[in-house]
Amino acid sequence: MQPATYKARMSNLRRRLASSRQPPYDSAWIIQPENRRYLSGFEAEDSQFTESSGSLFIAGDRCLLVTDSRYTTEAENEAIGFTVYTVEKSLVQDLPHVMAQLDNGVMGFEQGYVTWQLHREVSEKLSESAIPVTLEPLHDMVEEMRVVKDREEVNAIEASARMMSEILGRVIPALEPGRTEADVAWSIRNLAREAGADDLSFPSIVASGPNSALPHAVPTERRLQAGEPIVLDVGVRLKGYCSDMTRTVFLGEPSSEFRTVYKTVREAQLAGMAEIRPGVESTRPDAVAREVIADAGYGAFFGHSLGHGVGLATHERPRLGPQKPVELKKGMVMTVEPGIYLPGKGGVRLEEMVVVEEDGARLLTSNRDFYDF
Amino acid sequence: MQPATYKARMSNLRRRLASSRQPPYDSAWIIQPENRRYLSGFEAEDSQFTESSGSLFIAGDRCLLVTDSRYTTEAENEAIGFTVYTVEKSLVQDLPHVMAQLDNGVMGFEQGYVTWQLHREVSEKLSESAIPVTLEPLHDMVEEMRVVKDREEVNAIEASARMMSEILGRVIPALEPGRTEADVAWSIRNLAREAGADDLSFPSIVASGPNSALPHAVPTERRLQAGEPIVLDVGVRLKGYCSDMTRTVFLGEPSSEFRTVYKTVREAQLAGMAEIRPGVESTRPDAVAREVIADAGYGAFFGHSLGHGVGLATHERPRLGPQKPVELKKGMVMTVEPGIYLPGKGGVRLEEMVVVEEDGARLLTSNRDFYDF
Repeated sequence: MQPATYKARMSNLRRRLASSRQPPYDSAWIIQPENRRYLSGFEAEDSQFTESSGSLFIAGDRCLLVTDSRYTTEAENEAIGFTVYTVEKSLVQDLPHVMAQLDNGVMGFEQGYVTWQLHREVSEKLSESAIPVTLEPLHDMVEEMRVVKDREEVNAIEASARMMSEILGRVIPALEPGRTEADVAWSIRNLAREAGADDLSFPSIVASGPNSALPHAVPTERRLQAGEPIVLDVGVRLKGYCSDMTRTVFLGEPSSEFRTVYKTVREAQLAGMAEIRPGVESTRPDAVAREVIADAGYGAFFGHSLGHGVGLATHERPRLGPQKPVELKKGMVMTVEPGIYLPGKGGVRLEEMVVVEEDGARLLTSNRDFYDF
Repeated sequence: MQPATYKARMSNLRRRLASSRQPPYDSAWIIQPENRRYLSGFEAEDSQFTESSGSLFIAGDRCLLVTDSRYTTEAENEAIGFTVYTVEKSLVQDLPHVMAQLDNGVMGFEQGYVTWQLHREVSEKLSESAIPVTLEPLHDMVEEMRVVKDREEVNAIEASARMMSEILGRVIPALEPGRTEADVAWSIRNLAREAGADDLSFPSIVASGPNSALPHAVPTERRLQAGEPIVLDVGVRLKGYCSDMTRTVFLGEPSSEFRTVYKTVREAQLAGMAEIRPGVESTRPDAVAREVIADAGYGAFFGHSLGHGVGLATHERPRLGPQKPVELKKGMVMTVEPGIYLPGKGGVRLEEMVVVEEDGARLLTSNRDFYDF
């Protein structure tokens, strides 16, 4: 990302902090890894949930990246527009020094990421050190900023989706009866590494036969068989940005039932995708796709939402589901992934990634490898 | 693990809940993945930090595993002694149904894992539904139980440590000048998979030359060179249990400085290990190892603690460091990992895993591949 991008994001955040009505904030404390990277460019991941690689503290005219000595060099190299502060003991112990460089008043914190205990420790430290700062939930302010992607981000996500599509273009022709799900999953990891991905964006799902009826199946030692559905739900992370796509394939001829199921899912996907454009509510594509599936008699077998946003995280806003409508906007990126799951028999899920453009959804994944029944 | 093992753990937890003085608890809500597995045998991981695969609710005479439809089958197959309850909407929405099956009063929650927001949502749901249950921090009660390992657990950890030792025994002879750090890290992942590990217990550190001076280096495209230190800090997870070990190797002759550094680190490690036995305070091995390093003139270059517990998590209790002494007990498993890091030049770290037995520390990792200068 360009330095100007980070500058614009910080201006945007500061505007939102100052103009918020619940309440206005004097500063923000950002510890959630994707939010941290989005605002600063600092790429370090947290080594464990409870072992943070750093926090941003953003006030009206100062911004600090507070980290420990393991990450000082990386932080100084990567973070744009932040002063790196290395703690002596720990974030909590060093708070008085950190806060001395920031504005007093209301400090927003990420209530969906900060644990009850860390919140308690920070509050107590502030109060025992007589620092006039109070913590208030940020109400997902940075997550909201991340929903609409700028051009650089769309390009980064498209590169990630294209890489994943190309990998699947090699994996699918190499499927054959007798190979295990775990072996196929491993080959995907290998190809992602060869292609230069940062990593997989999530552990691949390779689910065959009855396993394909489980939306979140873990690859097993089960061997692929001819005629049964094989669901591949996969993604890579490239320069921080995630992809997420699903193909269902058959080795040889599917049964007439699965042929119908497949056609129904594909029709639902295309119908849902056709509803995506700026100004539409996020519930509408889901409703339309769901109707196609219900009309075909499979309404009871599509339990999850139609899709979700993708960006620095695999699952982010907006959700394309039956609840909590939000307005779709230009620059949002999301999956469209209807499925039909027949318990004990198998399932079909098809998932594409699209970006919302002026005149509708533009496909980011490649749509080859589709069966034309 | 044997069913009797889970029964014993639950009895132990119930005794602790009832006899706690801060306050006594009527029930416990367990959502932290390792704690959940420890108490129930339910192995599912959380797909993302904010996407839990389930919660345990444990009262005097009932225990429920509350999950969603993606995990119902796995939960029913794996969890021992728990009734599986599948939510209709979400954990929070379904709370009135769940709580109707449990005792009222004080419910302990994991304050170091539950987010501020989830705590708030659960509290509000309890109060708006007029359920007479209040949340109180559990103060790491289950983490405390996990510190002392039973025989089955020690065997599982030893199997994990042995697998990792054998993998390193193949990786180290294959190191040669020109290979990249990233390539070596990849070969470790490959061998772990072939050996049948669940996964790596953490991303391998392969750090050569100046990179080895960074205790948490990420593998790069840097090529190994003769004469420089190469730190390999690696672990696998096998049947849920982690290993964690470090070797520093040289291709060809090290400089006389690194020869001294290496000997000092090894001496510190052996001295620290010799202090480990039941009844000793956890600060003592650290102090003794640190003294060896200080006496050699490198006191300023050993910044981290001597070691940490290992089990279902790579990093757990006890910490072997200069602060917060706890008494070492039979059945505790820990790393012993002194290091000396010379900025810009390189570092040496050596890490073994030991279990505390009646008469001292018993090595779980294999100690081959040591340099005999």
